[in-house]
Amino acid sequence: MRTQVVIVGGGPSGLLLGQLLHCAGIENIIVERQSGDYVLGRIRAGVLEQVTMDLLKQAGVDKRARAEGLPHDGIELLFKGARHRIDLNGLTGGKQVTVYGQTEVTHDLMDARAAAGLTTIYNAAPVSLHDFDTASPRVRYQKDGATHEIACDFIAGCDGYHGISRASVPADALHLYEKVYPFGWLGVLADVPPLSHELIYANTPRGFALCSMRSATRSRYYVQVGTEERVENWSDDAFWNELRNRLDPEAREHLVTGPSLEKSIAPLRSFVAEPMRFGSLLLAGDAAHIVPPTGAKGLNLATADVGYLSRALEIFYREHSASALDRYSELCLRRVWKAERFSWWFTSLMHRFPDNGEFGQKIQEAELDYLVNSRAASTSLAENYVGLPLESF
Amino acid sequence: MRTQVVIVGGGPSGLLLGQLLHCAGIENIIVERQSGDYVLGRIRAGVLEQVTMDLLKQAGVDKRARAEGLPHDGIELLFKGARHRIDLNGLTGGKQVTVYGQTEVTHDLMDARAAAGLTTIYNAAPVSLHDFDTASPRVRYQKDGATHEIACDFIAGCDGYHGISRASVPADALHLYEKVYPFGWLGVLADVPPLSHELIYANTPRGFALCSMRSATRSRYYVQVGTEERVENWSDDAFWNELRNRLDPEAREHLVTGPSLEKSIAPLRSFVAEPMRFGSLLLAGDAAHIVPPTGAKGLNLATADVGYLSRALEIFYREHSASALDRYSELCLRRVWKAERFSWWFTSLMHRFPDNGEFGQKIQEAELDYLVNSRAASTSLAENYVGLPLESF
Repeated sequence: MRTQVVIVGGGPSGLLLGQLLHCAGIENIIVERQSGDYVLGRIRAGVLEQVTMDLLKQAGVDKRARAEGLPHDGIELLFKGARHRIDLNGLTGGKQVTVYGQTEVTHDLMDARAAAGLTTIYNAAPVSLHDFDTASPRVRYQKDGATHEIACDFIAGCDGYHGISRASVPADALHLYEKVYPFGWLGVLADVPPLSHELIYANTPRGFALCSMRSATRSRYYVQVGTEERVENWSDDAFWNELRNRLDPEAREHLVTGPSLEKSIAPLRSFVAEPMRFGSLLLAGDAAHIVPPTGAKGLNLATADVGYLSRALEIFYREHSASALDRYSELCLRRVWKAERFSWWFTSLMHRFPDNGEFGQKIQEAELDYLVNSRAASTSLAENYVGLPLESF
Repeated sequence: MRTQVVIVGGGPSGLLLGQLLHCAGIENIIVERQSGDYVLGRIRAGVLEQVTMDLLKQAGVDKRARAEGLPHDGIELLFKGARHRIDLNGLTGGKQVTVYGQTEVTHDLMDARAAAGLTTIYNAAPVSLHDFDTASPRVRYQKDGATHEIACDFIAGCDGYHGISRASVPADALHLYEKVYPFGWLGVLADVPPLSHELIYANTPRGFALCSMRSATRSRYYVQVGTEERVENWSDDAFWNELRNRLDPEAREHLVTGPSLEKSIAPLRSFVAEPMRFGSLLLAGDAAHIVPPTGAKGLNLATADVGYLSRALEIFYREHSASALDRYSELCLRRVWKAERFSWWFTSLMHRFPDNGEFGQKIQEAELDYLVNSRAASTSLAENYVGLPLESF
C-alpha cells in the first residue's frame, strides 16, 4: 500500500487533518489502534475557539457545529462568594467561543470521512513507524493476525500523549518539559439543563469547581479533588453535594442534579515535547503537548497544529517547497507555549494548592479582584480564552 | 508633653505624614530611635509613582523632586538577549513615574519639617506604646538617660518592619501573611552615568538584573544572588563582571563602571499584617507590609498609606467623625494586596527560581513574549507600574 500522508491516530485532530488534506487534494490514510466506537466513547473537551470553527469550516464539516453549538460571549468567575462576568465578546472586538462537544466534532468528521470514501484502518495494533529520517517512511501495523505496511511521504503523529509516534523518536532527539499539578478534576456528565447559560469558573475555599455544558440539555460539572481520590468513592450524591458547597447561594438554588452518564477523575499536567518535527514525522496535538483543562485549550491547540500542518503540506505538494514544513515546529511551538502559559496561569489562579499557604490564597483573591476590575487584565484573559490567531508561514 | 498625633519613626513615611498633618493643622511629634544622619544614610528605593508625587505636592515638598527628578515614560524588559520597551506613558493615557532617590525625599521632608519648626525627637530609644486600646494612648521613650512620655489622641506606627509599633500589638490580634523568596539582590550604587535613560529589567539564564539610577550621574545596579552569598565576597570588579554577563551586547558596550559608593545584599520578602488599625494605633508602610523590590512599590505603598491616614485624621478632627478612620485599614489593604500581587508577579516573572525547573523557565519566556506583544498585557503591567489610584473614603 502507498499514500502521501499516513495519519497515526483517528481522534479529532487526525480526522480533521485527513479532511483538510483531502480538501487540498492530498491522499491520506488514517491508522487507529482502537475501534471507531471506542474513539467516539471518549468524553473530552467542549469549548471551541474561533480558529477551530474556521478550520472545521475549511474542512467542510462545520454545519452541525454551527447549527447546534452554543455561541458563548462570556464566562463567569466566582470568588469570595460572588460571580463576576468577563465579557469575552466586548473585550475582544466581537470574538466568541462555541460550546460543542468533542465527541460531536469527532462524529461529524467521521461522517464526512465516510462520505468522501477515505480509508481509516481501525483496530490496527500494534503500529510501528519506520525510516522517518528518510523521504520514504513506512508505517507497519498488525490487523486480523496479518502484518501490513504503508509506504508514504509523511507520517502525521496525531495519536496523543500515550501514542507510538512520539515514543518512536530517539530519546536524545527530544527535549521534554513537564509539570504535574497536585490535584485532579472529578467530572460528571449528566442530562440536566446547565446551571447557567455561560460557564462558571469557581475559586472557593473547598477548591476549584467548573460548571460547563455540552448542550442546552446536557451539563458537564467538575470539582477539584486530591490526587489520592478514587472515583469509586464518589457517589452521584456526594459529587452534587460537593459541587453545591462550592457555589454561590443563587447558583446553589438553580442547580439541577440527575444521574451521571459518566464520572471520572482526570489528573492535571502540563507537558511539551520539542521539536515537533523529525524528518518525515510531524507530531500534532497531545502527541507533542498537554495542557491542564482549565481554559479549554487542549483540543483547540491540536486543531491549530493541524491547521499549520495541512497548510505546510499543501505548500509542499503545490509549490514543491519544504520551506513551510521547515517552519512547522517553530510556528506551532510559539503558539503552544502561549497556550501552555495561559493554561498554567488560569490553573494556578483558580485552584487551591496544598503548598501555597495563606499568602498564596490572598494573592489569588487579590489577582481575581484586580482581574475583574481592570479592563486591561480582563482583556488579557479574554484574548487568550477566545484563542490567539494563527500566524502565516 | 501632649500632642494630637505621635508618629513613631522618622523615615520618609513618618516625615510625610507629619508634613501632611501639619498642613491640615494637626499637631504632631515624631519619635525616632536613630539619629537624623543615620536615617539619611539608608539607601533605598528611587522610583516615585504619580500618587507619591501628588502627596509630596500636597505636603508642599515637591519642588526639588520636580526640578531634579527624572520623569520616566517607559521601562525596558530584557529577555532572550533582546530588549523590549513598555511604553508606560502611552499605555496609561499619559502617566509616568519619577526617578528621585528616597534619600532625597527624606532630605526634602526633613528640611520642610525644620522650616516649619515641628518637633522630631531623634535618638529616642527604647520607645514603648501604651494604652492604644483607649482614646488616650501614650508613647514613652528614653533619651539622654531620662524617661519621657507623650500623651496623644493617636499613634501612627511608621517605624518599619523591625519597629516597635507592630510588635506592640498582641500577637492574637494580628493575621500575618508571608513569603520568603529563595534569593536576594546584590546592589551597587556608583557615581557613573546610567547605562540607559530608562530602567532595564533583565531575565537572563544567570538570573535577574536591574539597571536603575538615582540621577543623570548616579547609577543603581542590582544582580540576583543566592541567599548564601555574602557581600564581602563581591569585589566591585566581580559585581561589574556579573552584571555585564547579564546584559545584551549593546548594553554591555555602553556600561560605565566605577567604584561603588555602597554595596549590599537585600533579601526578598512579601509580608502583610492585618488589620492596620488597633484602636488608637494606626500602622503605615513597612510596619504593616513588605514587598520585594521588583517594580519599586515599597516606598509608594507607604506614601499611599500615609495619604489615606492623613485624610482620615483630617476628617476626624474637622468633622468629628471616625468613619474614615474606621475604613482606614480596609482601604489600605485593598490597595496593598494589589501591589503585593503585582510585586510577587513581577518578581516571579523575572527571577530564576531554583525549584522552577525547565518548564518554569519556558513559561517565563512565553509570558514575556506574550507580554511585550499583547497591548492588553502590556497595559496591565503599565497601569500597575505607574501605580493604581487612591480610592475615596
